[in-house]
Amino acid sequence: MRGFARRSTVEQACDWIDEQVAPLSAESLKSVDAVGRVLAADVISPVNVPAFRRAMMDGFAVQAEDTLGASTYNRLPLTIVGQSMPASPANVRLQRGQAVRIMTGAPMPADADAVLPVETVEISGQQVEALDAVAVGKHVGEVGEDIAADSVVLNQGRRLRPQDVGILAAIGVPQVSVQRAVRVRIVVTGDELLPPGSLPDGFQIVDSNSPMLRGLVARDGGLITSSEIVVDQPDAILSAMRDDVDVVLVSGGSSVGQEDHAPRLLDEYGELAIHGIAMRPSSPSGMGRMDDRLVFLLPGNPVSCLCAYDFFAGRAIRALAGLSTDWPYRRQRLRLARKLVSVVGRVDYARVGVVQDRVEPIAVSGASLLSSTTRAAGFVVVPADSEGYPPDAEVEVLFYDR
Amino acid sequence: MRGFARRSTVEQACDWIDEQVAPLSAESLKSVDAVGRVLAADVISPVNVPAFRRAMMDGFAVQAEDTLGASTYNRLPLTIVGQSMPASPANVRLQRGQAVRIMTGAPMPADADAVLPVETVEISGQQVEALDAVAVGKHVGEVGEDIAADSVVLNQGRRLRPQDVGILAAIGVPQVSVQRAVRVRIVVTGDELLPPGSLPDGFQIVDSNSPMLRGLVARDGGLITSSEIVVDQPDAILSAMRDDVDVVLVSGGSSVGQEDHAPRLLDEYGELAIHGIAMRPSSPSGMGRMDDRLVFLLPGNPVSCLCAYDFFAGRAIRALAGLSTDWPYRRQRLRLARKLVSVVGRVDYARVGVVQDRVEPIAVSGASLLSSTTRAAGFVVVPADSEGYPPDAEVEVLFYDR
Repeated sequence: MRGFARRSTVEQACDWIDEQVAPLSAESLKSVDAVGRVLAADVISPVNVPAFRRAMMDGFAVQAEDTLGASTYNRLPLTIVGQSMPASPANVRLQRGQAVRIMTGAPMPADADAVLPVETVEISGQQVEALDAVAVGKHVGEVGEDIAADSVVLNQGRRLRPQDVGILAAIGVPQVSVQRAVRVRIVVTGDELLPPGSLPDGFQIVDSNSPMLRGLVARDGGLITSSEIVVDQPDAILSAMRDDVDVVLVSGGSSVGQEDHAPRLLDEYGELAIHGIAMRPSSPSGMGRMDDRLVFLLPGNPVSCLCAYDFFAGRAIRALAGLSTDWPYRRQRLRLARKLVSVVGRVDYARVGVVQDRVEPIAVSGASLLSSTTRAAGFVVVPADSEGYPPDAEVEVLFYDR
Repeated sequence: MRGFARRSTVEQACDWIDEQVAPLSAESLKSVDAVGRVLAADVISPVNVPAFRRAMMDGFAVQAEDTLGASTYNRLPLTIVGQSMPASPANVRLQRGQAVRIMTGAPMPADADAVLPVETVEISGQQVEALDAVAVGKHVGEVGEDIAADSVVLNQGRRLRPQDVGILAAIGVPQVSVQRAVRVRIVVTGDELLPPGSLPDGFQIVDSNSPMLRGLVARDGGLITSSEIVVDQPDAILSAMRDDVDVVLVSGGSSVGQEDHAPRLLDEYGELAIHGIAMRPSSPSGMGRMDDRLVFLLPGNPVSCLCAYDFFAGRAIRALAGLSTDWPYRRQRLRLARKLVSVVGRVDYARVGVVQDRVEPIAVSGASLLSSTTRAAGFVVVPADSEGYPPDAEVEVLFYDR
C-alpha cells in the first residue's frame, strides 16, 4: 500500500481524452430508428419536395388574371369545373373564367397559377365568386421549393432530431448511414460483491455501480455489451479489458493497493496514461488504452464512481457518440445559502441541495455516502485554484434531474 | 369549407391539458430497467447501509487510544494481528497494542474503533508504527450511517436517476413500483400518404409525421403502441380513437373541411374541448377526450404537426409520464440579427437560425416548409400580445439540439 507518486490534473485527464476520441465507423440503419444517432455521411435528396405544384391553402385554383379587381363590392364569378384533393387530383386543364375547388396539399390543375383562399370567396351552386384579387403564384408551392432534388438535406455529423427523421421519410430515404453505437463493457471487480437483484448478505454487499453505469452509458449514447462482476484475478480482469468493445469501464480496484490489479495490468499490457487525479472524490481514478479501446478505471465507491464517470468516461463516450463533451446536465446560476469549502490544488465535485433557489452544500464526511447523490439536487464543480465560496456567492449548479 | 368560428388561446389550451392529466396506474419493474421512470410509491430501505461497521480508508484498524500522542517524532508501534479485506474479514477481536491491516469497505474487527490511514503509518515486518494520532470513530462507517433500515430512501413521484437505481440495487430492492408508461397511439390520416420507407410516387407523398412523432413521443416518456396510416373514413378513425391507450395523436384532417372527420367524430362521440387556436402555425389544431383517453388533433402539415405536438400533445404526455410540462429544449437568451415580425392576437412559433450567437429568423411563406425545421437551430415563441421584436432585441431561443 502506497499513495500516488504524483497526481494529474482534471484538465490533463480531459485533454488526454479529447486527443483519443476518433470517429467510429459507420453502420446502416432504418431511418425511422435513427433518432439521436449521428449521420456518417451527407444525405442528398433523391426527389423534389414538393414533387408537383400544390396548393398551400384550402380554396380554389384559378388563373390570377381572372381575379383582377375583385372585391366584396366587385364580385367576380368563376365556374367550378372540378375538385382537386390530395389523393385525387382534378383531371382538368383550367380555362379562363374557371376554378377548381382545391385542398391544401392537393395538386394544382394544369394552367392554374394561384389559389384563391376559401376565406375570400362565396360559393353558390356551380359558381364561386372571388371577393378579392390574388397574385400569380400566390398560395402555390412550386416543384422543389421546399427541398430541391440532389441537394444536401442533412450534413454528416448531424445528430438526427425527430423532425429530421420525418424529412428522411418524406424524401424516400429509408436507410441512413450513421456512426456505429459506442460499445461499452462494464467490468465490476470486488470479491465482496453480489450481483444486482441480490439481497445484501452478511459482509457481502450488492453491486450498485453497474446498474448506475448502465443508466449513465445509455444516456450518453453508449450501448452496453456486457455488465458483470469479474473475479478479482489478474487473468480475468485482463481478459475483460481485451473485449471487443470501444470503451471498457472497470469499477473497483482502481487505486494503488496490492489488490488493485487493473491499473497494473493496463500499465503492463496497454497504456496507463493517467492514474491518480487531483480531485475529490475520485482521486484514485485512471485511464488508458488497451489496444484499440479506451479503458477507464473508476473507484469502487459509488459516489466516486459516479463522479469519475461524469468527469471522464462519460466525456469520452459522448465524444465517440458524436455528442457534446459538455456536462449533460441542466445548469443554473444560484446563490449559496452557506459557504462551500474546498481545498486549493484539487477540483471538488460538491453535491448540493437547492431549497427555495438557495444552494445548500451537502456536508459529507468523505466520498462514501451513497445516499448523498440521491439527496443532492445536483452538484457544483469547484476549480482547483479555489478555496471555495462564501455564503451568497453565485455558483453554477448542474442539476441531476434529467 | 368554412373557417373557425372562434379560436381558443394557447393559454386556454394549455390550461385545459393541465386539468386533464391525472397520474397513471402503477406497474412493477425490475429496478435496473427503471432509469427515467417515475416512482409510484415511496421506497423504504429494508436494510442498513452499511450493514456492518466498515473502514472508510485503506490503513489499519486500531484502538484510537493506542495512537494518543503519536507523531513522526514519537512513533508508536502496534502489532499486526490480521488483515480485513472486503470479502474476507479478519476473524479477530482487537486487543490493546494491536492493529489489523484493513482495506476501504472491509468490516472492522471487533473492538477496533478507528482506522489509521495508510499515509500515517510505517510498516516493518509484523509491526506498524503510528505516525499520527487518530480519534475514536475516525474513518469508520457506522451501521446505518449512510441509509438507515426502514427509512424512506426515494419518494413517490421521483424520476429515477442512474444513481437512484444504484441505490435500489445496494439496498436489495430488485423490483420497484413505477408509473405505467404512457401508451400513445399515432393515427395518420390522408389517402394521399404512403407509409414511411416508401418512395414518393406521382401525387402520393410519404408520411413524414409518424416517424417524427415517434421520436418526439419517445423523448417525452411515451410508449408507442401503434403508428400507422388509417384510411380517411369516419368508422376507421373513430375506431382508432377508441383504442386502449392513454393518448391518441391524430395527424391530418384536423381542420373544419368536409374531409376533416376527426374533430366532428370527437365532438359527436367524445368531447371536443378545443378546436382552432390563435397561433401560427398549427392554428387548425384541436384536443379533447374520447372516454378515458386524451385525443390531440394535429395538422397534417409537418411543421404545424411538430409545433402542435410541442405546444400541446408533448405537454400532456410529459405530464402523464411524471416529467416537467416545460419545453424539453435547451434555452439561451441571444440577440436578434434582424427583426422578428409577428401579429398581435396570435402566438408565433418562429423557427430561427443562430449564426455567431445572433438569432436569424427563418423567412418562410406559411407553415409549410418541411425543411425549415431542419434548417432551424431552434425557435422563438412570440407571445400573442407582441408585434415581434426589433433587431438587437434579446429573445429566448429554444434549441432543437437534443
